[in-house]
Amino acid sequence: MFIRLFKMALGATLCFSFSTSLAQKAPHTGDPKLTEYWDPAVRIITPGKTNADAPSDAIVLFDGKDASKWESEKDGGPVKWKIEDGALVVAGGTGGIKTKQGFGDCQLHIEWRTPAVVKGESQGRGNSGIFLMSRYELQVLDNYNNRTYSNGQAGSIYKQTPPLVNASRGPGEWQTYDILFSAPVFQEDGTVRTPAKITVFHNGVIVQHNTTIWGSTQYIGTPNYEKHSSKEPIMLQDHGNPVAYRNIWIRPM
Amino acid sequence: MFIRLFKMALGATLCFSFSTSLAQKAPHTGDPKLTEYWDPAVRIITPGKTNADAPSDAIVLFDGKDASKWESEKDGGPVKWKIEDGALVVAGGTGGIKTKQGFGDCQLHIEWRTPAVVKGESQGRGNSGIFLMSRYELQVLDNYNNRTYSNGQAGSIYKQTPPLVNASRGPGEWQTYDILFSAPVFQEDGTVRTPAKITVFHNGVIVQHNTTIWGSTQYIGTPNYEKHSSKEPIMLQDHGNPVAYRNIWIRPM
Amino acid sequence: MFIRLFKMALGATLCFSFSTSLAQKAPHTGDPKLTEYWDPAVRIITPGKTNADAPSDAIVLFDGKDASKWESEKDGGPVKWKIEDGALVVAGGTGGIKTKQGFGDCQLHIEWRTPAVVKGESQGRGNSGIFLMSRYELQVLDNYNNRTYSNGQAGSIYKQTPPLVNASRGPGEWQTYDILFSAPVFQEDGTVRTPAKITVFHNGVIVQHNTTIWGSTQYIGTPNYEKHSSKEPIMLQDHGNPVAYRNIWIRPM
Amino acid sequence: MFIRLFKMALGATLCFSFSTSLAQKAPHTGDPKLTEYWDPAVRIITPGKTNADAPSDAIVLFDGKDASKWESEKDGGPVKWKIEDGALVVAGGTGGIKTKQGFGDCQLHIEWRTPAVVKGESQGRGNSGIFLMSRYELQVLDNYNNRTYSNGQAGSIYKQTPPLVNASRGPGEWQTYDILFSAPVFQEDGTVRTPAKITVFHNGVIVQHNTTIWGSTQYIGTPNYEKHSSKEPIMLQDHGNPVAYRNIWIRPM
Repeated sequence: MFIRLFKMALGATLCFSFSTSLAQKAPHTGDPKLTEYWDPAVRIITPGKTNADAPSDAIVLFDGKDASKWESEKDGGPVKWKIEDGALVVAGGTGGIKTKQGFGDCQLHIEWRTPAVVKGESQGRGNSGIFLMSRYELQVLDNYNNRTYSNGQAGSIYKQTPPLVNASRGPGEWQTYDILFSAPVFQEDGTVRTPAKITVFHNGVIVQHNTTIWGSTQYIGTPNYEKHSSKEPIMLQDHGNPVAYRNIWIRPM
Repeated sequence: MFIRLFKMALGATLCFSFSTSLAQKAPHTGDPKLTEYWDPAVRIITPGKTNADAPSDAIVLFDGKDASKWESEKDGGPVKWKIEDGALVVAGGTGGIKTKQGFGDCQLHIEWRTPAVVKGESQGRGNSGIFLMSRYELQVLDNYNNRTYSNGQAGSIYKQTPPLVNASRGPGEWQTYDILFSAPVFQEDGTVRTPAKITVFHNGVIVQHNTTIWGSTQYIGTPNYEKHSSKEPIMLQDHGNPVAYRNIWIRPM
Repeated sequence: MFIRLFKMALGATLCFSFSTSLAQKAPHTGDPKLTEYWDPAVRIITPGKTNADAPSDAIVLFDGKDASKWESEKDGGPVKWKIEDGALVVAGGTGGIKTKQGFGDCQLHIEWRTPAVVKGESQGRGNSGIFLMSRYELQVLDNYNNRTYSNGQAGSIYKQTPPLVNASRGPGEWQTYDILFSAPVFQEDGTVRTPAKITVFHNGVIVQHNTTIWGSTQYIGTPNYEKHSSKEPIMLQDHGNPVAYRNIWIRPM
Repeated sequence: MFIRLFKMALGATLCFSFSTSLAQKAPHTGDPKLTEYWDPAVRIITPGKTNADAPSDAIVLFDGKDASKWESEKDGGPVKWKIEDGALVVAGGTGGIKTKQGFGDCQLHIEWRTPAVVKGESQGRGNSGIFLMSRYELQVLDNYNNRTYSNGQAGSIYKQTPPLVNASRGPGEWQTYDILFSAPVFQEDGTVRTPAKITVFHNGVIVQHNTTIWGSTQYIGTPNYEKHSSKEPIMLQDHGNPVAYRNIWIRPM
């Protein structure tokens, strides 16, 4: 669905005198219907009440109450994080959580909040992460008045590409990521045919614009790709800090 | 700014015993700092209070009162459209309006509303358009319960690419477009080196995803490119219907 | 195999004092081995004796004598074209021929010759075509001192994109195409995720440079995509003229 | 010139009855001329006698005798390399040579030969390099029965991307590179808007297929981009080994 190509329904029964020289000189005459097409019709959906709300065709991954679409990364059992005030909050040491369903190409909306009480600095403050396909990390961090390395900032593709700007809200405030993700495509021999791409808005501001992802996130060493299926779970990281998540919805594309 | 490439600050004073075979077997040992870099630092901005509000580094093109950043397309004089209830409303027959400033690559937020009282059908209902660089039209239309040709829908690149879905709100309701636009690049001889690209969210839903624009919008005949400068005004179309616009801001990239 | 990403074997046992400011000021010190990697090793092949000859890993589709890798497009039976002087020559009216094996991404070398005795003009002279995946036509035509429409020339993606230049040799002379082809990728619902791309050298001169293919070739109407498998036969067209082919080899990628 | 877009001359005087449903059911009726266009006409050139010979529109950078299109990298004076048997041979210690003219997007043909008498191993054997825009190195190396690191092989973008295969001929044999290069485009602020891309055939075999170049070649540390003009000299490296070059021609695109 990412790339649809130009096409036109051309008239079925044409009787006319064609003249290239005329066409060149008078491009604004002729029948405008030639460049209109009606089929296939465009699918109709209902957008959310606000732009942050899930549209009618989205899968709601967390609505503030129900974490049943997620499981513990550690043991595949129920999520061990806390549900507080309509948010899913990292319980440090319990491990990450991941969706039961796998996703590839998608639009993903997710809201997050770092602790209002600031502790630590650089990567030690309000750290978590969203791992698309369980591998490609979009960094979550309290990056408000908190200098860290550029490619480890909130909105960075962690240890790869820094955000275009730091559009962080303060600790204790809800922040949003609106994400477009294109899954990588692999050759039969396991090499990459097309790498993953990502576009991210942080609090409404573009921070990653069709960024190529160089491989799965590595804390040590450089990213690399290992072949995987076209749909993999989304994982939220337990980095020890009580980061909260809410209003998570996704539209597979 | 669209593409920033992977780079790492490598240690300046290294003393170590390197072993390829070890590196292959033990990729998770080593110094994580090797893949962190601090310079250049990421520029800090303040996001809007809501995601629809202008961030601190945006140029506000219309704030509800002041149309001085726009001029009449017809005669270059002051805008002839009406300002009503904080909105700039098409005054049919007065012609389009365009920004005095030119823009190329940008993030653009714009809100629009078609008349609450429905008149006409297909392209005749609540029709206007946003012309990036005065040439590339993102269609504005009352497309709620109103079938028209697919590549003429709200959210279409007019007469080129239909939206991925129809995410229209009803007549009289405010709707949003959040746009990423990459200007085309031309060769010296006037041919296209890289075409324009566009990403559009309609009411928070992706409707154009890095879509290639095939040339300037043509009502009759197919799109084509003619060389132009790297910054050109944004134009809003007078299509005869009293479509309203508000809260327009832009971030050049 | 099209896109391989940057990766580095990073040292396994590092002991060093890291200094960002130093790294910035003195980027040319440090260990060059950090950006060298040995695995995976690059596969070794033997190139042809000349650049037109098949390398050791190519599949030879026609060696001048044996047409057994081809079948008639009409009935799936043996090829009805003539083998003369080491060339496979179109027998007008017998229909096209296609490979028994399917191919997707590939490097393809093919040589062709239009009749020495010139008959007809425009599209009527020495016309044939190479259909990648049986659908996407690279035009073959006697285009020497023979004006035709630009997007129907030798080296054009027929009725889509003209060649960058007309690098034709004369009638009766052997000409070459060296082709890189990337197959389209489809979504499950049949829409296009990534379109086909093609690069073509005509007689050693670049005529298509990573050109996007808009869909299957249509004589009437505009190109469109219909989902097909990732490997499809190559087809050579019978357009009624005795065009000859020889020295055809392919390297799947 | 790299990307030309689909366009069609649409009939100027049309009189017909248009029917979408008919168009959908009967796409093969209608006027084929609607998708043919004659203007602009395709420029005619004369290809070389063989594919290795310069076409009529190429700039011959070295014809076997005349090195006047080159200058010493060291002092800008005349080339200090030797001309022997129609080849330009590295004179170790005299420094690289570069073209007086700058080039950006181009097709480049170049032939090279490493010494027949083998000395050294890995990077120490028959080492030189072709620096596009004086910055982006396509490695030249005697890589025949000579293992080295993968991203330092003949046909590699040095210390970035290894070749798809090792298509080396033996020491003392002439080898060819056929190169398509797209220069990077920079933003006003010096960041990269589109990175450089390269396609390379080594002895007729594809070894780099539209490979993204990550920045200027670095022996130590990772590649990075620094803004430069759109046309820069081509540089051939003096790496101390008497590598020979001949038949160098270029077609700016």
